[in-house]
Amino acid sequence: MAGGAKARRLPRVVRERQMVDAAVRCFARHGYQAASMDEIAELAGVSKPLVYLYLGSKEELFTACIRREAAALLGAVAAEVGEAEVPPDERLWAGLLAFFTYAAEHPDAWVVLSRQARTHGEPFAGEVARMRDEIVGFVAGLIGEAAGMVIAGRDVEALAQALVGSAESLASWANETPGVTAKEAAATLMNFAWAGLGNLMKSERWSPR
Amino acid sequence: MAGGAKARRLPRVVRERQMVDAAVRCFARHGYQAASMDEIAELAGVSKPLVYLYLGSKEELFTACIRREAAALLGAVAAEVGEAEVPPDERLWAGLLAFFTYAAEHPDAWVVLSRQARTHGEPFAGEVARMRDEIVGFVAGLIGEAAGMVIAGRDVEALAQALVGSAESLASWANETPGVTAKEAAATLMNFAWAGLGNLMKSERWSPR
Repeated sequence: MAGGAKARRLPRVVRERQMVDAAVRCFARHGYQAASMDEIAELAGVSKPLVYLYLGSKEELFTACIRREAAALLGAVAAEVGEAEVPPDERLWAGLLAFFTYAAEHPDAWVVLSRQARTHGEPFAGEVARMRDEIVGFVAGLIGEAAGMVIAGRDVEALAQALVGSAESLASWANETPGVTAKEAAATLMNFAWAGLGNLMKSERWSPR
Repeated sequence: MAGGAKARRLPRVVRERQMVDAAVRCFARHGYQAASMDEIAELAGVSKPLVYLYLGSKEELFTACIRREAAALLGAVAAEVGEAEVPPDERLWAGLLAFFTYAAEHPDAWVVLSRQARTHGEPFAGEVARMRDEIVGFVAGLIGEAAGMVIAGRDVEALAQALVGSAESLASWANETPGVTAKEAAATLMNFAWAGLGNLMKSERWSPR
């Protein structure tokens, strides 16, 4: 079969990426339970046995999606936050802007990470929890670097949890609300997280230098 | 059968409450997919057909759990926030304390609301989304009452999303982290949300009057 011969010419790594792309799209649209391996294979333009051969069960495929998308998101944010010499508010602003931009440009990936992945009791729940812990740990590291002498260790972790939770919630809202840009969402969260509601109610907003 | 005769003496409303209690516990522990109607019936001390007769399918039972627990949580918070005459920081503090106390005292309910309920693509997803929207709307109303002249409408909604997201994240962390009390979690979020990271890094914390 000509199509099959052509398909075999693509390197495995490219095929796998196409399969994971298709899987992210299907999981985002239908949810983990309802997504079908048939549809994923069709969307990727390969046979179902090839999906199983390359990426394993639906559960393993989902885990591959979570791992890839969480790493990509974390990488996009980490690339922008800058070194410890940069003032902490500018690092936070750069990180938030990178985060909301990534979520806006990869809405299916964001749905998979933020909603699908929360499901409790599934076999992949532990994997997903570890990924989120890594992201919280990264944010706690940033807060700790900026304020290690002033804020106690457990409070740093709690603040990181609060910041990650607010970003998750706001990114989903921004993606689902027509006309809200990534920059607007990042600016709102920057004001919330940096200036605080107390200052916002006095019209004292955070603004870039 | 004596047990059956005894069971029938309980009013339906009491039986239903016992069934929903058992369901919340099972859904929290095993997840929606893995939870079994057999175990729920056993835990409630009734027959499985009685669960179906009173509360319908597993999906309807889950929806009943979400509705009851969301209403109870919202009620617990609303009872504490006080009237519009109370200063906004005191209202926020009272609301956060009520929220974290409720989540700490009802850990199974909190798991069901915060994790199970997020699952996308399930038949109950719309119902769950409406419940969360109601909670965000309540918080937006509080922020709007306190700052309606100073903060624009869409920003009020975005800030409510951020605040609800940070509270969700921190409540799960607090429930899973040994030794973190509801009061401690509420105080951390109060400082984050009211004073902001900018002030916390200057050791300027929020404190009650």
